[in-house]
Amino acid sequence: MATIAIVGASGYAGAELVRLLADRDDIDIGTLAAHSEAGRPVADLYPNLVDHGTLAQIDVDELATHDLVFVATPDGPAMDLVPQLADAGTRVVDLSAAHRLPADVYEHFYGRPHAHPDDTPAVYGLTEFARAQVTDATVVANPGCYVTTALLSLLPVADLLDLSTLVIDGKSGTSGAGRASSDAMHVSHVTGSVGAYAVAGHRHTGEIETWLGVLGTVAPPTISFTPHLMPMVRGLLTTSVAHLASGIDETMLRDAMAARYRDEPFVTVLAAGRQPVTKAVVGSNACHIAVAVDERTNRATITSVTDNLVKGAAGQAVQNANLMLGMPEGMGLSTIGVYP
Amino acid sequence: MATIAIVGASGYAGAELVRLLADRDDIDIGTLAAHSEAGRPVADLYPNLVDHGTLAQIDVDELATHDLVFVATPDGPAMDLVPQLADAGTRVVDLSAAHRLPADVYEHFYGRPHAHPDDTPAVYGLTEFARAQVTDATVVANPGCYVTTALLSLLPVADLLDLSTLVIDGKSGTSGAGRASSDAMHVSHVTGSVGAYAVAGHRHTGEIETWLGVLGTVAPPTISFTPHLMPMVRGLLTTSVAHLASGIDETMLRDAMAARYRDEPFVTVLAAGRQPVTKAVVGSNACHIAVAVDERTNRATITSVTDNLVKGAAGQAVQNANLMLGMPEGMGLSTIGVYP
Amino acid sequence: MATIAIVGASGYAGAELVRLLADRDDIDIGTLAAHSEAGRPVADLYPNLVDHGTLAQIDVDELATHDLVFVATPDGPAMDLVPQLADAGTRVVDLSAAHRLPADVYEHFYGRPHAHPDDTPAVYGLTEFARAQVTDATVVANPGCYVTTALLSLLPVADLLDLSTLVIDGKSGTSGAGRASSDAMHVSHVTGSVGAYAVAGHRHTGEIETWLGVLGTVAPPTISFTPHLMPMVRGLLTTSVAHLASGIDETMLRDAMAARYRDEPFVTVLAAGRQPVTKAVVGSNACHIAVAVDERTNRATITSVTDNLVKGAAGQAVQNANLMLGMPEGMGLSTIGVYP
Amino acid sequence: MATIAIVGASGYAGAELVRLLADRDDIDIGTLAAHSEAGRPVADLYPNLVDHGTLAQIDVDELATHDLVFVATPDGPAMDLVPQLADAGTRVVDLSAAHRLPADVYEHFYGRPHAHPDDTPAVYGLTEFARAQVTDATVVANPGCYVTTALLSLLPVADLLDLSTLVIDGKSGTSGAGRASSDAMHVSHVTGSVGAYAVAGHRHTGEIETWLGVLGTVAPPTISFTPHLMPMVRGLLTTSVAHLASGIDETMLRDAMAARYRDEPFVTVLAAGRQPVTKAVVGSNACHIAVAVDERTNRATITSVTDNLVKGAAGQAVQNANLMLGMPEGMGLSTIGVYP
Repeated sequence: MATIAIVGASGYAGAELVRLLADRDDIDIGTLAAHSEAGRPVADLYPNLVDHGTLAQIDVDELATHDLVFVATPDGPAMDLVPQLADAGTRVVDLSAAHRLPADVYEHFYGRPHAHPDDTPAVYGLTEFARAQVTDATVVANPGCYVTTALLSLLPVADLLDLSTLVIDGKSGTSGAGRASSDAMHVSHVTGSVGAYAVAGHRHTGEIETWLGVLGTVAPPTISFTPHLMPMVRGLLTTSVAHLASGIDETMLRDAMAARYRDEPFVTVLAAGRQPVTKAVVGSNACHIAVAVDERTNRATITSVTDNLVKGAAGQAVQNANLMLGMPEGMGLSTIGVYP
Repeated sequence: MATIAIVGASGYAGAELVRLLADRDDIDIGTLAAHSEAGRPVADLYPNLVDHGTLAQIDVDELATHDLVFVATPDGPAMDLVPQLADAGTRVVDLSAAHRLPADVYEHFYGRPHAHPDDTPAVYGLTEFARAQVTDATVVANPGCYVTTALLSLLPVADLLDLSTLVIDGKSGTSGAGRASSDAMHVSHVTGSVGAYAVAGHRHTGEIETWLGVLGTVAPPTISFTPHLMPMVRGLLTTSVAHLASGIDETMLRDAMAARYRDEPFVTVLAAGRQPVTKAVVGSNACHIAVAVDERTNRATITSVTDNLVKGAAGQAVQNANLMLGMPEGMGLSTIGVYP
Repeated sequence: MATIAIVGASGYAGAELVRLLADRDDIDIGTLAAHSEAGRPVADLYPNLVDHGTLAQIDVDELATHDLVFVATPDGPAMDLVPQLADAGTRVVDLSAAHRLPADVYEHFYGRPHAHPDDTPAVYGLTEFARAQVTDATVVANPGCYVTTALLSLLPVADLLDLSTLVIDGKSGTSGAGRASSDAMHVSHVTGSVGAYAVAGHRHTGEIETWLGVLGTVAPPTISFTPHLMPMVRGLLTTSVAHLASGIDETMLRDAMAARYRDEPFVTVLAAGRQPVTKAVVGSNACHIAVAVDERTNRATITSVTDNLVKGAAGQAVQNANLMLGMPEGMGLSTIGVYP
Repeated sequence: MATIAIVGASGYAGAELVRLLADRDDIDIGTLAAHSEAGRPVADLYPNLVDHGTLAQIDVDELATHDLVFVATPDGPAMDLVPQLADAGTRVVDLSAAHRLPADVYEHFYGRPHAHPDDTPAVYGLTEFARAQVTDATVVANPGCYVTTALLSLLPVADLLDLSTLVIDGKSGTSGAGRASSDAMHVSHVTGSVGAYAVAGHRHTGEIETWLGVLGTVAPPTISFTPHLMPMVRGLLTTSVAHLASGIDETMLRDAMAARYRDEPFVTVLAAGRQPVTKAVVGSNACHIAVAVDERTNRATITSVTDNLVKGAAGQAVQNANLMLGMPEGMGLSTIGVYP
């Protein structure tokens, strides 16, 4: 039995952590803390969480009494909070972007300096590629949703592609944009409509490039990434197109992908001719990947889906926490989406 | 450890049973059988079930080797199959409508005679109102989705309302209509559109009337029920309007409801001023209920939501099976919907 | 050629007026005015209106230079503005609720006194039932969306029903709630979800009761009305259930409805067995109505659909303005929805 | 006044032609013909077309009595029918793909030989780039929806990009897949889900390559095109990414685009920093385009939206027919989408 706290429990990732952990016998959910929403009943914000108490103020000393703290705040608060918790000997899974990148890359893509450059990057928690490090880490930086989905589908074949030609088109459900209300998130504006956003400058681009290089053991490529908002709430699809490296064909590509994930419960490589759909993984920690090659153009099209709030956020955070706490990695996580 | 089989595993209720049972340590899913889809990989029909084998032919002897069989076929096959399994000593949860009604009521509302009138009704598995009977039953008739949602919100207050004035407006997600393709279920026709169907004659009307009478220990009322198709996949809302019985007010109504469900984990009565939303319960076995009274008209408006495939079908079936198999009633069932 | 202005052009009804009038040769759109959004380009708020200038301040003298002014502001501003325009000799179609009800009824349902009780009600512009009065009116109060949809389906049969038993269940697209952002209108909360709102107290109830009495020449009934938010943007359905008056059957009901609308281009009574769907009328000024009777319960179920922003707001306003300006009533209005 | 007929009026493009033409004073809709649905009332298939008669058999002699025939059938019937109508001296707008490509390109991408190779391609009706030819044509091949959307956003800048690096990601509403029911078009499967289809082999790829070369007066490039199905009914977005040609920057790119469309009523180039959304053009003949450049990667991202059934099909067909019949090009077509 381990005790955990969630900071930023007013946000979608925080609330999803509650959903994933509430029925666990081996986890005791302690404090649910938030900044501006402190004092409000959780049920005011989340009608699915009807019996989960009231949001507490953020109190580092109190948080540090838990075995592990999930930090699901914005970057700014996380930069200060995570080192304080670590210094107090508390293990942390940081779902913000605060500790995912080297400080200089962070500054370039986020347009502001990192408050504590020496603390970043922490152990990068793309679980399937970092089990040993995560298991022993004090602080794990949980990857972003677009990045998780793209990297899982690119890392096993990074050296089979001409990464200098890589173009990634991202398609995310609206929950990726968070709980804040705005014109852009008004149901009457988004329903039945698609559009791109953050064109030619999305922050996840640097995270993809950095970790594609490190974990793929290739020179970090310079890629094009264009995210799009979908008229759906959960689910994320990346469509990656790149020229094949010399001498590579579709079978070699799919075989490399399939071999890498043969023993991974949460990642499935689909058979030739099938394409993943986001709804197959909604609510689950699964990632489905497909590989196709157009011989006419010598390009590969690699598609990958996750639930942005689960494998793309809270689910992977639980997967990492399970490792850190010595529990079975998949505890409390499903591989089966809520379909239809 | 118990072994179970699912007949009609090609349908949505059958596939949902797989989703709910696949991660259980105390349940072993044996045969997944289907009629016209036998021989097809489950993954052909359900992209969330990527590793669940192939649909088998329906073979009564083979099915009877399981501790319990979920029958999720249409009524016709269920009428024949369920008694055969029961005769073989196998316990059955029948998710079809075949054994929910007395034969004469069935014939009236379904427009055809019941094939085995002596076998119906079986134990009616509205779990919260039939625990003892379900626990001991050989055959449990699992209630319909509209009926479950309406009855849970009406039974505790049946004697506080003038049921002769009861009008129920039902709103269901499209998954309630099943997996068969048709013009009426074409995504381009249903998206962004609402309409009523089966007006002045929906089959669930008789089921509501019958069991409102039996379980509510009132004279069976003659009600009006109008179902509507919603532009969403999962979730069901019933809006019930009726005059208050003499001397009853809103507080008495809400108190009676709240008292009845105080110790029920899956049924929540909302505080005054709140209204349930279907998404709060999607993917879960929960039912949320609200009570409001318009003093100007002396009418109560009672709203109730479930996930039609979970508490309205597969979830309640698992709840019943848990009781029948001597397992904790809530095992494998969540109270927290996949929200947002 | 007539000149018109729109006040409250930042709202959905105002923007819809622009859409309906922009291509007219016989209408010149002059000022588009707004309160808090004055000074912003229309295209900032409405990406479909890319070339429609900037929102002006509200200036009564300037507005009064137009032949007709559409007032699409909230009630408060409309109460003051409409009489000023009328005093200046300018004709007005008021899309707010400010002049739809007698002052005492307004106060009861809106919870505040009417600022100018002698000015209300204006001519009530349910066009098909008020052509002569609208044609000659200085001020027309444009009916609400729920009320238009319900009244069109009830007025021709008001004396064939037992109105004391009338229960109306309303289902509206999200555009009915306006352009303001909020938790309740966040796309991630509304998508895939339904719920009731303003239960046992919606303001449209009084408007239905009042005008059902006046235009139906019956004693104003006391009805139950429950509105629901649908996971779609446009479209509104009312489902009305009532006992039949003595001696009335389904054929008599449908014949009365059909006879009333035989020559009305915008109202269609569907054949027996058909049910209206909202998407059939989206973007158009049409209303589709169906009648069904359950002989078992002696109740009628009457369903009616409109586009809440067209026949339920801007379209009916244009229909009224056409009459006031001596133009063909249907000019610029379609009977064909954007389907699929 | 001109008389027109529509063949394939049972399909979405055919029904959309009826919607766009029904209110015209200068067009008389004569025969609505269909193959397998002949004999059915139009209202059976399209609830928005409640008063538009019955679908006729396809009779070439009878069709040839009209001034112009819209052919909206599948390719096979169109290959035979169009030359017969042309031989009879009747002008044709062919919405099928039968006459868009040289016969050898057709065979490559469609996997079957063209029935009448000498008849193809007809005049390619991308209106803004072919006015003179369309005006005089006997047969116009109406472009595909993906192709229209992509070409409008690429042709003005074709020589400013390195087209050998062009990757197009297409996102279409479900109406692009037509009216046929299937598992893949079941509302319960598509709602809330996205996925790619026809990966590495979509037929529109050849049409884009061919006409980008011809109309852009560049060497036909070999491109990558991946279409995706969106959980919405209408609307289409193409996201095109390519390296800039040497010496080109964002301003030069946007200026070239804006200059080309300055006088085009149906094509709007958005200001820097804005991105198009599909809902802004739904129901209208408009196309909105945005240009962005990532200096870090030296790549341009060009986004473009249309309503696939209007500018991508029936609307452009009407635009072409207006020219052929000597009517104002924009007659009956709106530039304002049904938003919100």
